[in-house]
Amino acid sequence: MSDLPISVRLNPETGIPEQYDNHIQRSLSDLKGQFQNEVEYYRMMAEEDRLLYEVYELSRPHVSGELLTGVSVIHSGLIGDEFVMTKGHFHEVLETAECYYCLQGQGAMVLENPEGDCVVEPMQEGSIVYIPPRWAHRAVNTSLKDKFVFLFVYPAHSGHDYGTIESRGFRKLVLYKDGEAVIVENPGWSAQGSE
Amino acid sequence: MSDLPISVRLNPETGIPEQYDNHIQRSLSDLKGQFQNEVEYYRMMAEEDRLLYEVYELSRPHVSGELLTGVSVIHSGLIGDEFVMTKGHFHEVLETAECYYCLQGQGAMVLENPEGDCVVEPMQEGSIVYIPPRWAHRAVNTSLKDKFVFLFVYPAHSGHDYGTIESRGFRKLVLYKDGEAVIVENPGWSAQGSE
Repeated sequence: MSDLPISVRLNPETGIPEQYDNHIQRSLSDLKGQFQNEVEYYRMMAEEDRLLYEVYELSRPHVSGELLTGVSVIHSGLIGDEFVMTKGHFHEVLETAECYYCLQGQGAMVLENPEGDCVVEPMQEGSIVYIPPRWAHRAVNTSLKDKFVFLFVYPAHSGHDYGTIESRGFRKLVLYKDGEAVIVENPGWSAQGSE
Repeated sequence: MSDLPISVRLNPETGIPEQYDNHIQRSLSDLKGQFQNEVEYYRMMAEEDRLLYEVYELSRPHVSGELLTGVSVIHSGLIGDEFVMTKGHFHEVLETAECYYCLQGQGAMVLENPEGDCVVEPMQEGSIVYIPPRWAHRAVNTSLKDKFVFLFVYPAHSGHDYGTIESRGFRKLVLYKDGEAVIVENPGWSAQGSE
């Protein structure tokens, strides 16, 4: 009876699981090169390598048939006119999906496939986004004051390919303009990658 | 650009997805032989083949890497001293997991593996239950007045084996006794099955 079912309650105030195995924290320094406004990025870094987002995950074997699940908390704020966002990645096993459910706040999922289609799906409390296999994904917190908190579930054998997005970016950006979130083409997007 | 991401909002009052592809409805007649009190079962059936639970699911290809997701709504009530529950099943591909997140109400997941270990995990709003591969699962609504509503995600190649549970039952029952839900050994459980 080694592999028992797992029962976890999310904190009703914060959405954070009351037990978890992995706590991943990503700060400004982890997203070097990902924000458009480099002057502002380095100015902020000099002040503080501030925390941008956190992931609370249950640990499971990384094999087909298992699922990885947990909660992501994206903090609020701007780097220049860009909202706080995750690094974004493809799955290493490209033919794997992912499912999100928004628990708190508001945000957007920036999604792009290898053919170059790029869509942005807004999320609010009670939204589900289903990401079919082959779509890279980045979460963006479009609030300037509230956390964007969501549940995720994906096949445990998916793996992560961060490198493609790190070097090329997504084709679209979510920016703060005139008091709201707007979606624009990414002027810094590179077909070849930045390296 | 055929296989786009899917964005669906859950109705904030009911938890039901505002769009879905499959709507499965199960009534008393679909659970023939599953409740202990057959006299009461047939008395109720003679009155009305009442709806016990509903599943709202997004349609996806049944292949590894895809996920099936949606919302289950378990209605409230008693059949004798047994709460309304789902049929319960193993996955046909036994080595596949499932993940539940409770949106509304309260309930229990009855879980059993082929080795005969049986556990019951209570759920309330904000609970996650992770069902490892190999565990059969049945949802029970332990409220007499509110719906038990939960989000589910499982690998799309899992398939369903309903027959094992239909013929043998689970080793444990969740009953209403003296105003509360109690877990008891199933006196009708059969090592050989009922057929």
